[in-house]
Amino acid sequence: MKDIAYYNGKIGRIDEVQAPITDRGFYFGDGVYDAAMVNNKKIFELEDHLDRFYNSLKLLRIEPPMQRDELTKTLNELVSQLDSDAPHMLYWQSTRAVAHRMHAFPKGGKASLMAFSEPCGLDRQDHPYKLISVEDTRFLHCNIKTLNLIPNCMAMQQAVEAGCDEVVFHRGDRVTEGAHSGLAILKDGVFCTPPADNLILPSITRKHFLTLCDKLGVPTRIAPFTVDELKNADEVMILSTGTHCVGACELDGKPLGGKDPALLDKLQKAYQQWFNEETAK
Amino acid sequence: MKDIAYYNGKIGRIDEVQAPITDRGFYFGDGVYDAAMVNNKKIFELEDHLDRFYNSLKLLRIEPPMQRDELTKTLNELVSQLDSDAPHMLYWQSTRAVAHRMHAFPKGGKASLMAFSEPCGLDRQDHPYKLISVEDTRFLHCNIKTLNLIPNCMAMQQAVEAGCDEVVFHRGDRVTEGAHSGLAILKDGVFCTPPADNLILPSITRKHFLTLCDKLGVPTRIAPFTVDELKNADEVMILSTGTHCVGACELDGKPLGGKDPALLDKLQKAYQQWFNEETAK
Repeated sequence: MKDIAYYNGKIGRIDEVQAPITDRGFYFGDGVYDAAMVNNKKIFELEDHLDRFYNSLKLLRIEPPMQRDELTKTLNELVSQLDSDAPHMLYWQSTRAVAHRMHAFPKGGKASLMAFSEPCGLDRQDHPYKLISVEDTRFLHCNIKTLNLIPNCMAMQQAVEAGCDEVVFHRGDRVTEGAHSGLAILKDGVFCTPPADNLILPSITRKHFLTLCDKLGVPTRIAPFTVDELKNADEVMILSTGTHCVGACELDGKPLGGKDPALLDKLQKAYQQWFNEETAK
Repeated sequence: MKDIAYYNGKIGRIDEVQAPITDRGFYFGDGVYDAAMVNNKKIFELEDHLDRFYNSLKLLRIEPPMQRDELTKTLNELVSQLDSDAPHMLYWQSTRAVAHRMHAFPKGGKASLMAFSEPCGLDRQDHPYKLISVEDTRFLHCNIKTLNLIPNCMAMQQAVEAGCDEVVFHRGDRVTEGAHSGLAILKDGVFCTPPADNLILPSITRKHFLTLCDKLGVPTRIAPFTVDELKNADEVMILSTGTHCVGACELDGKPLGGKDPALLDKLQKAYQQWFNEETAK
């Protein structure tokens, strides 16, 4: 199939598969998700994404829809039915239950599993991003990868309308993350990224870059940084599963980064090599 | 029908109707809703709920799924197909679009409409509520009636597990609202309720009680109050579409209210009378 979707055992094209309107995802956003890149029908670093997914479930007290080995098998089987070996995004989510609407958890409710995979180019890596800053007014549970994403959608639309590619969320002075990316800066040869507290999602790509930096001997610093520090960074790195790492050239219409292209390029290439090797035929 | 549901033109029982997994409600919670009580197949004060619904749509920049007169007709037609004249809850929601997943608004996307109606007893009015206090960690857009309701669900579950009926959300000292109710207190004969800023939903029942108080000559005060003020109130009133107004007898296991039952009873009876008259056969 060109794209594929799954809902509680049903399989079809993304535009065909349906879910009951009583799925709590639909009216409460009561669920969590994760997503990984697929290349040559291999899921890149699935274990990291499953670690985070099961942790998100635990934090929302959702009983997993299936055990980890069964979910691994289900996701791999889905991906195996894709027509193409080209890069795809694999997305999956679990919602608390299918039940009539009431806020408290329904008794005996069983979690739903939805998943889909569709082509994803990785082509946005080629040009640096333009960014806009947006005050971060989200809830205080951003460490959980939930389906409550309205502020992220609204901010991303603001970015698009400003001719930009991503958002820099900040709470007052403190930079948190993007609308759907993690953030890091390079300054004086050091890879700096905010701590994984309740204000940001523990980005897998961020974790991978921390590992890569260690391997390559690039010093790292995990600490909050301000909007001004971001403005004065040598490079700004936008980190996400769908794009790996993209540099940034502009914030709110003013030039940004571009002062340490060699280190940025080195890190980007090292990550691409890791991805290629892990997902080789 | 005993209960009825609607999704983009399809009609059936609540447990039958399905929606595409690509509805943005399902994976972003990207939509808004409202709900009204039905009695004798008449929707109580629908205009107030539609005012709020269209305002919620506007605040999230969602193009309405249909014009107001057409939505009014659709909702009334749904309700007319119910078997019983007994009280029912009527719920409807609109999500931004059916589209493949991307955070920014899909171009040319058309909003979806989902609705359902099912029996709702109003029987919880009979006993005062037990409450628990929960720190309000929600986003800063609580004035919009969105589908991003995870913190409300988590808090309500906490209440149920504590043997309680509702939550008192507070940001630091300041009381905001319940997990699915508005809050007011009676103190020295005055009806006090927080201002309708971005921290609380502009509750229709709260608005109705402000109107009722004016009619009955009960003074009102719209201003923030603290958890301590709530603890020292003569009565605490839990206001919602589904229960109208219920008193409270306990907060975090300690006695609450019960010091002005005459005024509470007067207000409750006046509201019930309004409801009965407006929805009489």
